[in-house]
Amino acid sequence: MARTLWLDEHGRLLTWDQTRLPFASVPITLTDESGCAHAIRTMQVRGAPLIGAVGAYGLALAARVDASDAGLRAAHARLLATRPTAVNLRWALDRLLAAVLPKAPADRAACAWAECARLCDEDAACNAAIGRHAADRLRPLARPGRPLQVLTHCNAGAIATVEHGTALAGLFALAAAGAALHVWVDETRPRNQGASLTAWELKSAGVPHTVIADNAAGLLMRQGQVDAVIVGCDRVAANGDVANKIGTYGKALAAGDNGVPFFVACPVSTIDADCPDGAAIPIELRDPREVTHVRGRGPDGRVVEVQLTPDGVAALNPAFDVTPARWVSALVTEHGSVDATAPAIAALLARAAGARS
Amino acid sequence: MARTLWLDEHGRLLTWDQTRLPFASVPITLTDESGCAHAIRTMQVRGAPLIGAVGAYGLALAARVDASDAGLRAAHARLLATRPTAVNLRWALDRLLAAVLPKAPADRAACAWAECARLCDEDAACNAAIGRHAADRLRPLARPGRPLQVLTHCNAGAIATVEHGTALAGLFALAAAGAALHVWVDETRPRNQGASLTAWELKSAGVPHTVIADNAAGLLMRQGQVDAVIVGCDRVAANGDVANKIGTYGKALAAGDNGVPFFVACPVSTIDADCPDGAAIPIELRDPREVTHVRGRGPDGRVVEVQLTPDGVAALNPAFDVTPARWVSALVTEHGSVDATAPAIAALLARAAGARS
Repeated sequence: MARTLWLDEHGRLLTWDQTRLPFASVPITLTDESGCAHAIRTMQVRGAPLIGAVGAYGLALAARVDASDAGLRAAHARLLATRPTAVNLRWALDRLLAAVLPKAPADRAACAWAECARLCDEDAACNAAIGRHAADRLRPLARPGRPLQVLTHCNAGAIATVEHGTALAGLFALAAAGAALHVWVDETRPRNQGASLTAWELKSAGVPHTVIADNAAGLLMRQGQVDAVIVGCDRVAANGDVANKIGTYGKALAAGDNGVPFFVACPVSTIDADCPDGAAIPIELRDPREVTHVRGRGPDGRVVEVQLTPDGVAALNPAFDVTPARWVSALVTEHGSVDATAPAIAALLARAAGARS
Repeated sequence: MARTLWLDEHGRLLTWDQTRLPFASVPITLTDESGCAHAIRTMQVRGAPLIGAVGAYGLALAARVDASDAGLRAAHARLLATRPTAVNLRWALDRLLAAVLPKAPADRAACAWAECARLCDEDAACNAAIGRHAADRLRPLARPGRPLQVLTHCNAGAIATVEHGTALAGLFALAAAGAALHVWVDETRPRNQGASLTAWELKSAGVPHTVIADNAAGLLMRQGQVDAVIVGCDRVAANGDVANKIGTYGKALAAGDNGVPFFVACPVSTIDADCPDGAAIPIELRDPREVTHVRGRGPDGRVVEVQLTPDGVAALNPAFDVTPARWVSALVTEHGSVDATAPAIAALLARAAGARS
């Protein structure tokens, strides 16, 4: 499929301006370090893997201007400051610096560019592997005489990564293989990433889908209209508890009450072996305005924010919840899918470490 | 508490224009039959009990103009046509007609007005009784050292009835008795009745509350921040299955997974003894536009509708779901609270029939 970060025929780097989605599909050209920094800072790009890749390219573009040790270290610091808490951004910038500093200054720009390509290829390959394993789990769940019906929450899609996405990777793989497929898209309040981003991605890829209010997921499962649920995740604890977008837990409960398999797609890097269980995962509270207001396209075609609640009403906006491992049917990683249990996860991590060494 | 439908010092009938809520609290005066019909047709009034009461007053006001048999029957037909599927509207109009037709024409207008007052008093008394029984169930659930924390879904409030509401009646009763109380208000997508109407009612009544995205309810229960859930309902089957606003089922599952009591407040008239279980309850599909668009107050102060999804994306909008009886801790009616089981419900219906005879 098409990459979220791509080079055109002149070797220029492009990506989607995600602040314009889903109402306009506007590509932006990233021509220098400051363009990459601006894209990250203003959230034209989002999603940990994509932010990391754009940051890395920012450093490679900086190397074309000043490839000295001091110049590269300064660029590294400037790029890191665009999203200081993004772990993946730091990881990607550190990797670039480690790759180029041993080289002669004249070779550094080319080396950095090649390292960015490798980093992107690895992200794409990891997600493609997740997609293959997810497709293997999902395919047999289709009922005779109708398309496979999969429900997803939030956006764990290609546009959060270099290519394929995580939760959506399996769905794109099935669609590419010609499987009959229909996706139920939770709108995912309060930020509506499902209604906007996931719907945009599935529409762009030609995968049949229907948006629903988050509240409707339980009814559809009771009615037998959902064959499986697949979501991404932010962190998996050593015991298999899963932290993901607020509302994931509720979908897992509804799946459990109706015998619907509930899959969590995640690169092995998402598993935090040092985190014993979900109780140890802190829950970020975001701006209550995301609950009291919503952004959309008004009657005049302009995107505006409207207020939903009476003036002065308080709101609470937790960004994530924790789904206990007992409600998770399997974790689907680039090294295969495993039960959400401590022994299975430990064995997976050992296997992944072996593959790397 | 204040009634939703009230008489001013000149004997004029007033109610809130609910199409203006929650951004403006605008009372409207209902001076004649056509004013009442307009209020029902344009949804200035909503909620089965309130629609019934406004329809009845419409007939009483018509009797002041033409109290002949033919005149009253014609007004009955005109008022019924404003919301033809509203069962409670037909019931109220039939009751009025049956009360006034035996009277001499000169006495009919006064008789009709008195019958409306009785009908309203009965609705208020029924809801007050539900509120007392709900308060009795909720009060002991408060944990030491903090306010009682109750979560509610949608709007089963005073403004859907003549007074008190159903699910909110118990909360108003507790607050009036000086209990320390805090209410978590599900915003209740897609129509946001929680974020708009329930928040407006609780704010107006001075009851502490916080609006949350529907997705956040499960997390709050896992964190021990919810002592009980109470919701209204549209229909209860003979086995205790409950049809209510879409998303109710998900809250019941989260309550069940965390040992949080889940109460359903309902007048006995909501129990359908002829409906064996939830599978027999049809689910209304509403306009997908309620999912793809949302109404709110824009930056310029005007209320507008904004689009959330990309152009051309399909949405499905089921209005209700069914919560299996096993997830319901108790039904709270004007005749007391009972387990959501067939024998307990049958006994309650027998007791209610005895009280009426």
